[in-house]
Amino acid sequence: MVQRFAFRGRRPPVGAHPGVFALPEHVAPRHIHVIQYGPSGVVEADVRDLDDLVRFRDGPGVAWIEVNGLGDEAGLRRIGELFGIHPLALADVVNVPQRPKVESYEGHDLLIAWMAQLGDGEECQLEQVSFLIGPHWVLSFEELGEDVFDPVRSRIRGGALIRSMGADYLAYSLVDTLIDGYYPVIEVVGNELEALEEVAVHKPVRSTLRRIHAVRRAILSLSRNMRQQREALSTLSRGESPRVSPGVRVYFRDAHDHAVQINEVLESYRELAVSLMEVYLSSVSNRMNEVMKVLTVIATIFIPLTFVVGVYGMNFDHMPELHVRWAYPALWVGMLAMAGSMWVFFRRKGWVGRENDGGDDEPSE
Amino acid sequence: MVQRFAFRGRRPPVGAHPGVFALPEHVAPRHIHVIQYGPSGVVEADVRDLDDLVRFRDGPGVAWIEVNGLGDEAGLRRIGELFGIHPLALADVVNVPQRPKVESYEGHDLLIAWMAQLGDGEECQLEQVSFLIGPHWVLSFEELGEDVFDPVRSRIRGGALIRSMGADYLAYSLVDTLIDGYYPVIEVVGNELEALEEVAVHKPVRSTLRRIHAVRRAILSLSRNMRQQREALSTLSRGESPRVSPGVRVYFRDAHDHAVQINEVLESYRELAVSLMEVYLSSVSNRMNEVMKVLTVIATIFIPLTFVVGVYGMNFDHMPELHVRWAYPALWVGMLAMAGSMWVFFRRKGWVGRENDGGDDEPSE
Amino acid sequence: MVQRFAFRGRRPPVGAHPGVFALPEHVAPRHIHVIQYGPSGVVEADVRDLDDLVRFRDGPGVAWIEVNGLGDEAGLRRIGELFGIHPLALADVVNVPQRPKVESYEGHDLLIAWMAQLGDGEECQLEQVSFLIGPHWVLSFEELGEDVFDPVRSRIRGGALIRSMGADYLAYSLVDTLIDGYYPVIEVVGNELEALEEVAVHKPVRSTLRRIHAVRRAILSLSRNMRQQREALSTLSRGESPRVSPGVRVYFRDAHDHAVQINEVLESYRELAVSLMEVYLSSVSNRMNEVMKVLTVIATIFIPLTFVVGVYGMNFDHMPELHVRWAYPALWVGMLAMAGSMWVFFRRKGWVGRENDGGDDEPSE
Amino acid sequence: MVQRFAFRGRRPPVGAHPGVFALPEHVAPRHIHVIQYGPSGVVEADVRDLDDLVRFRDGPGVAWIEVNGLGDEAGLRRIGELFGIHPLALADVVNVPQRPKVESYEGHDLLIAWMAQLGDGEECQLEQVSFLIGPHWVLSFEELGEDVFDPVRSRIRGGALIRSMGADYLAYSLVDTLIDGYYPVIEVVGNELEALEEVAVHKPVRSTLRRIHAVRRAILSLSRNMRQQREALSTLSRGESPRVSPGVRVYFRDAHDHAVQINEVLESYRELAVSLMEVYLSSVSNRMNEVMKVLTVIATIFIPLTFVVGVYGMNFDHMPELHVRWAYPALWVGMLAMAGSMWVFFRRKGWVGRENDGGDDEPSE
Amino acid sequence: MVQRFAFRGRRPPVGAHPGVFALPEHVAPRHIHVIQYGPSGVVEADVRDLDDLVRFRDGPGVAWIEVNGLGDEAGLRRIGELFGIHPLALADVVNVPQRPKVESYEGHDLLIAWMAQLGDGEECQLEQVSFLIGPHWVLSFEELGEDVFDPVRSRIRGGALIRSMGADYLAYSLVDTLIDGYYPVIEVVGNELEALEEVAVHKPVRSTLRRIHAVRRAILSLSRNMRQQREALSTLSRGESPRVSPGVRVYFRDAHDHAVQINEVLESYRELAVSLMEVYLSSVSNRMNEVMKVLTVIATIFIPLTFVVGVYGMNFDHMPELHVRWAYPALWVGMLAMAGSMWVFFRRKGWVGRENDGGDDEPSE
Repeated sequence: MVQRFAFRGRRPPVGAHPGVFALPEHVAPRHIHVIQYGPSGVVEADVRDLDDLVRFRDGPGVAWIEVNGLGDEAGLRRIGELFGIHPLALADVVNVPQRPKVESYEGHDLLIAWMAQLGDGEECQLEQVSFLIGPHWVLSFEELGEDVFDPVRSRIRGGALIRSMGADYLAYSLVDTLIDGYYPVIEVVGNELEALEEVAVHKPVRSTLRRIHAVRRAILSLSRNMRQQREALSTLSRGESPRVSPGVRVYFRDAHDHAVQINEVLESYRELAVSLMEVYLSSVSNRMNEVMKVLTVIATIFIPLTFVVGVYGMNFDHMPELHVRWAYPALWVGMLAMAGSMWVFFRRKGWVGRENDGGDDEPSE
Repeated sequence: MVQRFAFRGRRPPVGAHPGVFALPEHVAPRHIHVIQYGPSGVVEADVRDLDDLVRFRDGPGVAWIEVNGLGDEAGLRRIGELFGIHPLALADVVNVPQRPKVESYEGHDLLIAWMAQLGDGEECQLEQVSFLIGPHWVLSFEELGEDVFDPVRSRIRGGALIRSMGADYLAYSLVDTLIDGYYPVIEVVGNELEALEEVAVHKPVRSTLRRIHAVRRAILSLSRNMRQQREALSTLSRGESPRVSPGVRVYFRDAHDHAVQINEVLESYRELAVSLMEVYLSSVSNRMNEVMKVLTVIATIFIPLTFVVGVYGMNFDHMPELHVRWAYPALWVGMLAMAGSMWVFFRRKGWVGRENDGGDDEPSE
Repeated sequence: MVQRFAFRGRRPPVGAHPGVFALPEHVAPRHIHVIQYGPSGVVEADVRDLDDLVRFRDGPGVAWIEVNGLGDEAGLRRIGELFGIHPLALADVVNVPQRPKVESYEGHDLLIAWMAQLGDGEECQLEQVSFLIGPHWVLSFEELGEDVFDPVRSRIRGGALIRSMGADYLAYSLVDTLIDGYYPVIEVVGNELEALEEVAVHKPVRSTLRRIHAVRRAILSLSRNMRQQREALSTLSRGESPRVSPGVRVYFRDAHDHAVQINEVLESYRELAVSLMEVYLSSVSNRMNEVMKVLTVIATIFIPLTFVVGVYGMNFDHMPELHVRWAYPALWVGMLAMAGSMWVFFRRKGWVGRENDGGDDEPSE
Repeated sequence: MVQRFAFRGRRPPVGAHPGVFALPEHVAPRHIHVIQYGPSGVVEADVRDLDDLVRFRDGPGVAWIEVNGLGDEAGLRRIGELFGIHPLALADVVNVPQRPKVESYEGHDLLIAWMAQLGDGEECQLEQVSFLIGPHWVLSFEELGEDVFDPVRSRIRGGALIRSMGADYLAYSLVDTLIDGYYPVIEVVGNELEALEEVAVHKPVRSTLRRIHAVRRAILSLSRNMRQQREALSTLSRGESPRVSPGVRVYFRDAHDHAVQINEVLESYRELAVSLMEVYLSSVSNRMNEVMKVLTVIATIFIPLTFVVGVYGMNFDHMPELHVRWAYPALWVGMLAMAGSMWVFFRRKGWVGRENDGGDDEPSE
Repeated sequence: MVQRFAFRGRRPPVGAHPGVFALPEHVAPRHIHVIQYGPSGVVEADVRDLDDLVRFRDGPGVAWIEVNGLGDEAGLRRIGELFGIHPLALADVVNVPQRPKVESYEGHDLLIAWMAQLGDGEECQLEQVSFLIGPHWVLSFEELGEDVFDPVRSRIRGGALIRSMGADYLAYSLVDTLIDGYYPVIEVVGNELEALEEVAVHKPVRSTLRRIHAVRRAILSLSRNMRQQREALSTLSRGESPRVSPGVRVYFRDAHDHAVQINEVLESYRELAVSLMEVYLSSVSNRMNEVMKVLTVIATIFIPLTFVVGVYGMNFDHMPELHVRWAYPALWVGMLAMAGSMWVFFRRKGWVGRENDGGDDEPSE
């Protein structure tokens, strides 16, 4: 159910110039959409000529420049020049994957976050989203460009509170949307854990093993991610960046709080998954036990009987029992008695009959 | 016995306006009860018209406004306006589950705690209770509205110390009642662990596995909860909120202390539960061992004997033994001797006879 | 050997007035013994009328008021009034169990410690001892009143250094005696671990499992206890209480050091106990292996032979071998050869013969 | 695949003079290459006479003195004198292995880092590289002298940004190259984990065990290494050394960030490896289960049948069934019925037929 | 190989006067050797009359008073008086074992360290060595008096750097010698781990279990020890003691660094040992699997065949097959076919033939 979240990514060539770009060979074509807004109104535009961005950078109100697809290196460097982005910040935007973090540069902050989305078939996709937060603008970079920010766009267009706030509040709105996107993912993980528990106790098959391992890997990835996201948001909520105004800090504190909560849940999921593996192991042992019991019961009843009938199959000249008329039926009686007493013995040991699973001693479960 | 404490809850739609409410479809109808008290007297009232609350907000003494059932969004927003509640604080009250925490806003503090209660059949229910602590009032929000605060009400009516104290002491009294409610829950968990230990050592059945896993899950939930509760109370006892007077801090320190104690107990319960799982696994292995021993003893005694009788069942023309008069009884003697020596061998190995469980070497247990 | 240290205790009813007492129904009758001393002399008295305590409170020198058995609530409240004890401090003294801690109140400190004692049969008993440390007096509260403080009494009577020191040094002497009482307990735990190791490797029986689990539980309890005791003593040795003079801090540092040492030992015992459980599991697996080998050797040798003799027990009309004179002895030779080569095979596999335990490759063990 | 990273190293004789050198007997001959550069140009030279180094030490611009192979003690001491290196710093350079660290001495900093390289056959080699960072020079010491720093040399020759920066930026460039070298190693580890997972679930062989243990050992080594590297870089990025200018700190922060990321990945790899071991154990149990099932099915079907045919092989004079004409075919019918019903029973238990692995209940995996 | 490091030690009687001595009954006779040195020369003497020590205490230069064997209490107290040692410090010297630590008293520091030495047969011995560091003297106390400090003595006599340094450098030299003594011990542990790994994978015997447990215990002891040693050295290197001059701090930092390194290695050894236990468990499971396979193959081939020959051993009057001439050879053909097809089946399952260990799929290992 839950797909694997591998550590993948392009790294710049070893020893490359710091700030070098490691663009993949086939990048999605770049698409830039700008929303500029203020209390009075909203302007939207698709930008093709990068130099048009100057207008939005300096214009009135807050500009959200949304860059989907990373495109060519020259274009990215041009954007960097226009907004005065530090080369290292720009490199972090391009060279995915970077860990979630906040870094302050002169004139702007870099905020790297990871988006978690459920695709078809409930597999989870993680994708890096980078934000560059300036005085009056927010640049957002996304490689694939899924439309997760639609609700924010609607709120801007709808003239909500966000219209009267600055770039810091916009950054908060965007990152809050990302964090909220983890809730359905975590629910899927929780459901998988619940389903696995049922399976692990009652009918452990080999794929259960694979699924438990997969869910542990997923939890590890999500947890590693969210732990760092939490740290980044904590930095912002404590007001260590000059670009986040005190009034917006309380909102970042709220986002931080969500990250803490998700983290706590993931932490306990991790322990549950460890416990599940042990449950699975125990279940397999239990099954083996059951198999052994059947073998033992059958073998222990019939092996002695087979010996007995073997005795009277011997060809000694002098075996008086063979000639007694009631010997044969008597033997049957004896053998049935042997088998019966064995059966009683095993029954008492609890090796035959209904397993006392969910029996009388646990009525309240 | 111990029920599962799942991570459940409603989340606002992804990317929603911060402060948005995610009310469930079928909420319990809202019921508001107010107790206003001072050294001189107590006034109680059921409030239906929200605007009546103004009177209690501004009136003399301390007002405890108890909101049971969250009701409609408009009403909640109206209460927020009347008491000057920050939208994020109000959202945290509504959008359960939130993690236990303390957050200071201008004019009021938000304290989120979790109540643990034993229902029928000893299953444990966790429920969020939120407190908004103002200068002269405490707003408490509870979704289900179980009457756990009865003792506090009695003490107010009875004219105890609480009558001469402020809103901070009221908040302490309420949260202390919640914390104390964990003791019986923990006792149930402890009893379950004790019962499971007995079962795991002596008669491990498949349901034992489920129960151990369930108790681990319960401990994880309680522990996660209480750890955060402890942090929240630590914040209040250190006097980081302006609304908690120095004289009341020592009481919050006491409540914090209880949280620490419960936490320590849960922490050791967690390790015990891990140990229990290993005990269970060992027990299952022991059982398998026992099954194997029975099989081995029976098979090892009878398989060679069956071979022997098979020999004299062969139809060779020239088998001189068959014609000796005393051969048959002699064979019996030989076979009994074989079986007997096997038996002695197994006895020495400790595979037959009484298990040396609780034998001489452990007289003091 | 090592008894269980359960989490037991009386809790006041949920939501009770803070500071309420939860006295058990059958408390030991209270007995108060006072020793007042100074450089010049020692006065001892058994106090029956609580008001006599005033004399010792205000008298010259240092007074150690030893309260054994908690008695009735009224009396305790009276003592509280006489010495100006904060209600929460008094409640912590009464409502055992409390975790070890130090808390400063106006005019006095509360120090809660736990005493570990070996009873008959080497079971360990933990008991809360509470100290209230005032300017010139120390109140000690003990529920059962075992005479562990005898050495301190002797030193006071003997006119040692303690006579010239203040109440802080008396408190140190008492708590140091408690801490030292853990050494024999820890030695018992260490011996049990050593004994269990021998048993777990060489002859694991079912009770071994119970004992390992019991010792883990004991270590957990002691460790939880001592960890908190260490924290409390650290507080005192850092001089955070105004009632501990700088000259006595170094003594508390010494007591703290002992607590650290005990803690470190417990910590490594805990890991050893975890390792022991794995050793036990491995031993059980080894035993099962041994059982399986015996079964396999016997079955693998005799099942094919039984088949062979079965062949010549068939009643076909035309089986030429049956009529050859030397066929029967030849068959015996063949069967012995089969069995012999099987035996050699198993011997090479190491399944029969002496286990190579402690063999040549490990001469130095 | 992944080779072991043992703790190896030469230690000076116990109790030796601090600063003593423990040179191995067969050291690679020393080779010194110097690059001196500034914005205006680059000078390169192979240095044979150590006194020539004075020229570069005092000359204009930044000098990178690359020492490959440690050579003789006298020469090293001479270098130490020329650059004013503290004896302890020089000893740390020589007496490999030292842990990664940064240490400030008067006039220079010591930075010890570890390089990870993939050799042929994908085995990983770790090697200590030491840097001594002075005001205008960087001394780098490498025992084996692999050419990993070629990219940095190219950038210097190519006249990039580095030409206009100081010795601190050179040090950064070198250490950043080392850190980047971990990425391919980590990828190899990740691939091995993935491969092992496949093997552990589907066809666990004994070598799998060895490989899992080897990969755990490798992860432990890398993780221990990188954790300390991270700390060292953190020290430099926080500007605790006077030799790192504020403008270069942000670059060290970036290198630190990479170290953090690698560390996080290693941490989750470690957990995955633990999980893998459990998966392997479970798989082995599953296999045993399968073996047991085959044995049990065969034995349980045929042992009773063998008993039955044994019965009619007995030689009693009076066994009426033997003389009934249809008895023999009837017996066959009966035996086939017995075997058939057994088969149905086992089929229902899921012991025969296709394993329900990847069955209908898990369509989405 | 590696011996156990038990928690042993003498404790003073419970509740004894603080500073009381718990001398063992049979102590080694005391032997005091003094080396007094300065830049100009060295004086050495064996001291029998304790009052001769005054001369060295007050004399010029630095005095190293080496006390081997603790001797009688009176003598120790006399030494304490002569050098002004705090009673608690003296008690810590005598009452071994104390944990490694540094404590500052007025006029002197107490440094407790633990020496690790390899005895014959590679067993490791831990012994407490205590140092009292005064302004011009160092008192060293050792119970057994092994001559580990010989190298330091040689360096003093040889006129090295140490002659021109103070008492703090002498203390450093001594403790550094102790720390360096851990390297060979750690190497032995590392070798044992390596040897155990080989054994655990390829031929796990019961003693392997004991050895793994023993090595874990050894690592735990060493690690606990070294962790505290590291803390003590960290205190000295941070210059918290007035008796360590800034110039010597850098040397203590170096010793601290060695302690950190040893600690890191021990930490990873600990994890490796845990992993080894799992490897051992897996190996035992694998072996059991192998045993089971042999049993299953033999039983599954021969049990059906035995049934078949049993059929034709029956004595029914009407069994037409018995009278067919070619029936007997035909039966042999049939049985061989059955056995053969079984063999092919098992071969495909990989249960017979060479284990595919180190097979084609892992060429690079």
